Amino acid sequence: MSKRQTFDLSAVSEDLARLREANPLTHCITNLVVTGFTANVVLAVGASPAMVIAAEEVGAFAAIASGLLINVGTITSGDVEPMTIAARAAQAAGTPWVLDPVAAGALRFRTEIVERLLEHKPSIIRGNASEILALAGESAGGKGVESTADSSEAIDGARRLAARTGAVVAVSGVVDHVTDGEQVVDVPGGHVLLTKVTGTGCALGAVMASFLGVSQTPLSAAVSASAVFALAGERAAGETRGPGGFAAALLDNLYLLGRPE
Amino acid sequence: MSKRQTFDLSAVSEDLARLREANPLTHCITNLVVTGFTANVVLAVGASPAMVIAAEEVGAFAAIASGLLINVGTITSGDVEPMTIAARAAQAAGTPWVLDPVAAGALRFRTEIVERLLEHKPSIIRGNASEILALAGESAGGKGVESTADSSEAIDGARRLAARTGAVVAVSGVVDHVTDGEQVVDVPGGHVLLTKVTGTGCALGAVMASFLGVSQTPLSAAVSASAVFALAGERAAGETRGPGGFAAALLDNLYLLGRPE
Amino acid sequence: MSKRQTFDLSAVSEDLARLREANPLTHCITNLVVTGFTANVVLAVGASPAMVIAAEEVGAFAAIASGLLINVGTITSGDVEPMTIAARAAQAAGTPWVLDPVAAGALRFRTEIVERLLEHKPSIIRGNASEILALAGESAGGKGVESTADSSEAIDGARRLAARTGAVVAVSGVVDHVTDGEQVVDVPGGHVLLTKVTGTGCALGAVMASFLGVSQTPLSAAVSASAVFALAGERAAGETRGPGGFAAALLDNLYLLGRPE
Repeated sequence: MSKRQTFDLSAVSEDLARLREANPLTHCITNLVVTGFTANVVLAVGASPAMVIAAEEVGAFAAIASGLLINVGTITSGDVEPMTIAARAAQAAGTPWVLDPVAAGALRFRTEIVERLLEHKPSIIRGNASEILALAGESAGGKGVESTADSSEAIDGARRLAARTGAVVAVSGVVDHVTDGEQVVDVPGGHVLLTKVTGTGCALGAVMASFLGVSQTPLSAAVSASAVFALAGERAAGETRGPGGFAAALLDNLYLLGRPE
Repeated sequence: MSKRQTFDLSAVSEDLARLREANPLTHCITNLVVTGFTANVVLAVGASPAMVIAAEEVGAFAAIASGLLINVGTITSGDVEPMTIAARAAQAAGTPWVLDPVAAGALRFRTEIVERLLEHKPSIIRGNASEILALAGESAGGKGVESTADSSEAIDGARRLAARTGAVVAVSGVVDHVTDGEQVVDVPGGHVLLTKVTGTGCALGAVMASFLGVSQTPLSAAVSASAVFALAGERAAGETRGPGGFAAALLDNLYLLGRPE
Repeated sequence: MSKRQTFDLSAVSEDLARLREANPLTHCITNLVVTGFTANVVLAVGASPAMVIAAEEVGAFAAIASGLLINVGTITSGDVEPMTIAARAAQAAGTPWVLDPVAAGALRFRTEIVERLLEHKPSIIRGNASEILALAGESAGGKGVESTADSSEAIDGARRLAARTGAVVAVSGVVDHVTDGEQVVDVPGGHVLLTKVTGTGCALGAVMASFLGVSQTPLSAAVSASAVFALAGERAAGETRGPGGFAAALLDNLYLLGRPE
């Protein structure tokens, strides 16, 4: 029986303060749809994003970054080499990194690439229920990039995937579930508007990479990032009426979180 | 003499309700400038965007999608293969698709690619007056990606292009004109701020691809998408003072349209 | 001793009025993170952006554009050819152009490319202090894409770089410094929120390329662009509480600047 608990708000607050003090350099190799939004989210939280993608540059950059994100959302064959170089360099240099296996399971080409990237030992795997279930070896077709399963249905699969890979696994959904294979930490507070803005999940992966530079464990990094997102998302939803205003308010609230009014 | 009419608001409302019920999977292969905004527009309207672009994946994906958009805005030689595969797969699988021939006529490289894509029978061609006139065989140089002609000047050319290709042709402008070669449906209501936000026309093409999955004909899909955009655009313009606020309000109003207050 | 002065507001106003009258076609070859935001900034100011990037198209397009921006932010090996073609075509056709050497000095691959692009005589080089100092031959490591030096520390290096290259050099920071090697014009008014939105510096480079089509000298183009940004940024900061709202308000204020209320 796994230990199940809800996130600790004071630990998250301390992590966030640490992040803003350290301003960690966060290397993001992400998809073409969300690059700008991701950089803005990382800046709003208080870290320094850098979207270096050239095969000639990613190795050196991943080695000096505080954390790395690899997101396969719009992967093409030309992206395989730089992603592999970056993952290998991160592993060699001890840079903790996050793998976001967008649409894994639904499309074979990227599923195979994701499996190979897993060999370079990400600290965190972040996905929706369909993606995590697919990597855990269970058939659960997603709908394009969206999950067709509820996050709670993927908890057992997430624990198995964590045990197999050594990574913390974070399943995003109405409630986020984060597990290191033993503990399962729940982060409630997601809002439907988060699903109406493209790239919120992808940006969350980048924030996890930022927290990896300052949190004590990959588990706490994934939890702190998820909690910061949930808190800012709740506030933003309370202030707005639709996804356009919400996206701006989400950035504002990520920026304002924990600051004196 | 062509039949000329203004769009039917109740038919548009029914189409929009159908779209939200079906949540159609909309495959977008679009340009690098507007990917994020396009995905956000498609989400706001109520469909599911997926921006799959790898040559290894686009064929399978276009075959299962409800609708496909191909937009050549920032096309390079490496994009020709995946675009061609996607168009061919859509044709073979019966997935209706939209071609957005950005800057066709102004630049020869892409004009030739657009002509070849036309062989795979798009259901809708959406462009500004300069682009439609160029494809219709009339010289009408655009200014980069902007039209130098008024949309009404392209009605005859649009009808000829529709007759030649079998596609519905939608000319965007202050008034949008949509034709299947016989009927011409006018959609008034565009606002100047729509021209001050990049990608509104490109995103409109994606929304047409979303409606293709639920509307009864390509003509009604193009009209419903244009009308939804015009209505949301008018409301957004009435609430804002400039393009930054307008872009957010456009997403909000696309999301709120037809929902109970 | 260099001549040091603050920008002339009435000259900036005249330049801005001229830009809106001319609506200059601005060719932007920029990085994947900021394409959409850059296009929106250029539209808000009153110019026409076009993000043409294909090797087959950039030469012809750079030749007819009023101004060109080349920004190496997310450069890969595949970008070298089109950037080189565009720079060469601009030089041959007399199209003035802006080089934004993002992270030059910090990463060797792009630093060498930037040095080769310099041979095609940009009219303006725009960067942060670390980038300008690196090109001026002084060691000043940046932190990824962010500067670790204050803009004032780069004034002497900027003057030397201007003298060596013949380009106007603009150093962005809390105060922007623009020099043709002799005069140094200060543009105060930057706000910390400008550093919390990705791509503000990159978009400023595009606005410089827009002004190059209408200003009397590259110096005045760089100063007018910087001043317009500083003025709009100050107003936007006064109206907002965080980076999400600020980004939208920046676009609104760029659009509203100098217009009758």
